[in-house]
Amino acid sequence: MEINKDTKILIVGLGLIGGTYAQALSDQGYEVGAVARRKETIDFALDKGWIRHGRWEVDEDYIGDFDLVVFALYPHIFLEWIRDHQHCLKSGALLTDVTGVKRSVVYAVQDMLRDDLEFIGAHPMAGREKSGVEYAEKEVFYDANYIVTPTEKNTPEAVAACEQLGRLLGFRTIARLSPEEHDEMVGFLSQLTHLIAVALMVCKDSTQLVRYTGDSFRDLTRIAKVNDVMWTELFLLNKDELLRQTDIFMEKMSQLRDNLANGDAEAIRAMMRLSRERREYFDK
Amino acid sequence: MEINKDTKILIVGLGLIGGTYAQALSDQGYEVGAVARRKETIDFALDKGWIRHGRWEVDEDYIGDFDLVVFALYPHIFLEWIRDHQHCLKSGALLTDVTGVKRSVVYAVQDMLRDDLEFIGAHPMAGREKSGVEYAEKEVFYDANYIVTPTEKNTPEAVAACEQLGRLLGFRTIARLSPEEHDEMVGFLSQLTHLIAVALMVCKDSTQLVRYTGDSFRDLTRIAKVNDVMWTELFLLNKDELLRQTDIFMEKMSQLRDNLANGDAEAIRAMMRLSRERREYFDK
Repeated sequence: MEINKDTKILIVGLGLIGGTYAQALSDQGYEVGAVARRKETIDFALDKGWIRHGRWEVDEDYIGDFDLVVFALYPHIFLEWIRDHQHCLKSGALLTDVTGVKRSVVYAVQDMLRDDLEFIGAHPMAGREKSGVEYAEKEVFYDANYIVTPTEKNTPEAVAACEQLGRLLGFRTIARLSPEEHDEMVGFLSQLTHLIAVALMVCKDSTQLVRYTGDSFRDLTRIAKVNDVMWTELFLLNKDELLRQTDIFMEKMSQLRDNLANGDAEAIRAMMRLSRERREYFDK
Repeated sequence: MEINKDTKILIVGLGLIGGTYAQALSDQGYEVGAVARRKETIDFALDKGWIRHGRWEVDEDYIGDFDLVVFALYPHIFLEWIRDHQHCLKSGALLTDVTGVKRSVVYAVQDMLRDDLEFIGAHPMAGREKSGVEYAEKEVFYDANYIVTPTEKNTPEAVAACEQLGRLLGFRTIARLSPEEHDEMVGFLSQLTHLIAVALMVCKDSTQLVRYTGDSFRDLTRIAKVNDVMWTELFLLNKDELLRQTDIFMEKMSQLRDNLANGDAEAIRAMMRLSRERREYFDK
């Protein structure tokens, strides 16, 4: 399928990311509907013009009317939703998601899905430190990456449509990774960095440190204000990979620590030079 | 002493921070001179109007003409300079510095200093990822903290003058800490965060990761482009404290890691909630 102006798009879960999808797609003229848990959420999005219609209860007729369905739910709620409501979806509909872990979600959904539906995983790598549709702001996608995670069950048409969706949403880059590659990459770049920020933040009572803090501590802990429910679920669903990435990092910390304890200036300097050289790629 | 328009100020070492002092103080109308290692550095600062005169060799008559002398040198060069050239300084002159570690510098300088000179330590907690006078930009001080580290050898007048200097330079907050308190605070807030950034950056070849990187990895590694010579010297001079702070952090990382390995969602969530709560102080 190709997404065009006749494609009716349903967003299931109208939080920060679901809301941003609705906003970005409505602003481009697509017909967007939504299912949320609370009437207030639907009313807010209707009022903003981000959705044309919505439901705050699962309405079987309503959800059967869409060609493209985007799930922006916590992973376990997403899986339950598919189990309980997939029978209502329109035959031939394309399903995608925004979940931050892939192996544990993509294969489970594809395994239980009806034969006349197709699910292709995607991960919009953008977010804010706030939760809720009221903080949606489509500009957060403009400098961010959108990852599509096809499996052998996916058709080329679905991959193309999912990549088209990423472009419609305004992402700067669209990439393709297997669920396994995705989870390794996200384990390192995103989950490990959140783990570090949390660890740093709980080291000591920081209220009296605020007045001395330079930019470096602020930088390293900006992401420390995590949604504990969501991130704990994502961590546990990617446990093996996050443990592996954490151990790689801890090993490097131990090396630096030992070089320091031994007064080995040259070994510390060599690691710093490598760090500098690698970080310079990010400025290019 | 009070700093006034008759106070002649010498900057020894015209790198990024020394250059920024020269710029900020000249812009306020003070007579600023400088000693640098290279003629080009002096010419650049003269051309910018950041200094009124300067020398690229230590000129004994010249350095004896200043009331306030700011040392912006690597720690070991600073100590050598005092040992070799303090006999030329003007009787009654006030000396201060910008060094990022304090116990190892402040007591050593005060112990060897002539009785008719006074040294008071200070640490401007600001910087950039670049080195050199050509990157000086006085605005980096405006949102930053300036720490004065007096000892029992300092007079109230010197403390007051040093704090006045911090205000003249435009720092947002001026604080006072003992050298011990300073080194503990800097060990945690600044040195440990740089250690973490370097460790994260050397974990793996990141050239292929750039395209997937979201903001969190960029945030945690912005400071990874360290000047290896300077930071290694600062780390080793604060070794005991940096090791202590690193161990506190590693202990929290291990706790998170073990909770993850054990699938203890509630323990992870509790640490995340504490992290979130503490980080919120920084937004106030």
